Amino acid sequence: MFDKPTMQLRENLCSHLFYENDCVKILRNYRHFFIIQRMVEDLKRIEDYVRTIPDFPEPGILFRDITTVLRDPEGFRLAVDSMAELIGDTPYDLIVGAESRGFLFGAPIAYRHRKGVVLARKKGKLPCETIEESYELEYGTASLEMHREDILPGQRVVIVDDLIATGGTVEAIAHLVERLGGKVVKIVFLMELAGLEGKKRLAGYDVASVISYPGK
Amino acid sequence: MFDKPTMQLRENLCSHLFYENDCVKILRNYRHFFIIQRMVEDLKRIEDYVRTIPDFPEPGILFRDITTVLRDPEGFRLAVDSMAELIGDTPYDLIVGAESRGFLFGAPIAYRHRKGVVLARKKGKLPCETIEESYELEYGTASLEMHREDILPGQRVVIVDDLIATGGTVEAIAHLVERLGGKVVKIVFLMELAGLEGKKRLAGYDVASVISYPGK
Repeated sequence: MFDKPTMQLRENLCSHLFYENDCVKILRNYRHFFIIQRMVEDLKRIEDYVRTIPDFPEPGILFRDITTVLRDPEGFRLAVDSMAELIGDTPYDLIVGAESRGFLFGAPIAYRHRKGVVLARKKGKLPCETIEESYELEYGTASLEMHREDILPGQRVVIVDDLIATGGTVEAIAHLVERLGGKVVKIVFLMELAGLEGKKRLAGYDVASVISYPGK
Repeated sequence: MFDKPTMQLRENLCSHLFYENDCVKILRNYRHFFIIQRMVEDLKRIEDYVRTIPDFPEPGILFRDITTVLRDPEGFRLAVDSMAELIGDTPYDLIVGAESRGFLFGAPIAYRHRKGVVLARKKGKLPCETIEESYELEYGTASLEMHREDILPGQRVVIVDDLIATGGTVEAIAHLVERLGGKVVKIVFLMELAGLEGKKRLAGYDVASVISYPGK
């Protein structure tokens, strides 16, 4: 047997070891918890949150509704995280969000990545000096503006929008960014309507989307 | 002197204590680091990022431009974090964001708090069955819609917008939420134009804003 101070030391040491062991156990369970959580989450994919509405806003259009993604805490987080993962390690300076559904994903990605977010807005909404690009939508035409001083020459830009259809909107934004001297390093969408071949139109850019629908 | 195994125990224990001490030191420095960082950050306030533009969109209006907040990584983070702090410990189920500048703050707050975000949009934008409220702007009139099924009866809602002027927009949204059976537990703005007395109009609600401008 040891003497009393030694016993005390031994006891302290044991409690330390016990504590360490507990920590390891907790960490291990924690890791398992996340692995299991991830497995469960993976069972539910972004596609499961998107709602498809026929004939909106015009007959013949299959509208991919993201409000069911947004309103679900898990769906929303999965969407933002998946889009952020598509950017990956690409170094960049700021996000450009397309009004207004692009704001809903662009803003949280910028927040998560500690970046600023610059707006591409419909004509007449931005208060300072702007430049403008017109483009054709899949159903109609429109025009987008950006503040002239929101992009500095050489800044690396990631463009974010919810959906790529014909690619016209984002092509116009890419032109705006380039006219201001910025470099488009990535374009990220939640959804792609592959049948409309928007990616072909954006062939010169690094384009990625979380979901791809074969149709229009 | 102790015997050899005891010495070993003592040594192990000392190294444990040393390790613990180091941890405490690191944690302490870490804490100081954050306190100092916070002090430096606090030197620059949200007000310093907001740009004021006279006579936009109409003569006599002092437009508070948030694009300079958004495009700055620190400004944007400070804005979102300050608004999230205003919600504090108030338990809630979802954020309602007002189109479209409300999306820019509502979405990252929802992301940060792991909540869903529901949209209050201009008429004709939402694809499913909606309810509608008309309201007067400080310069004109408009109408907002929400999806009928986006709020479940009893859900606790935080409404987020960038600015409270007369309070008309958010009053309409609060009515939409209540018509759907939701409960408005908090309304959060980045900025308040105190001269327009919008908070009086929202007197029945828990309203907070990060910045308050005395004028209109």
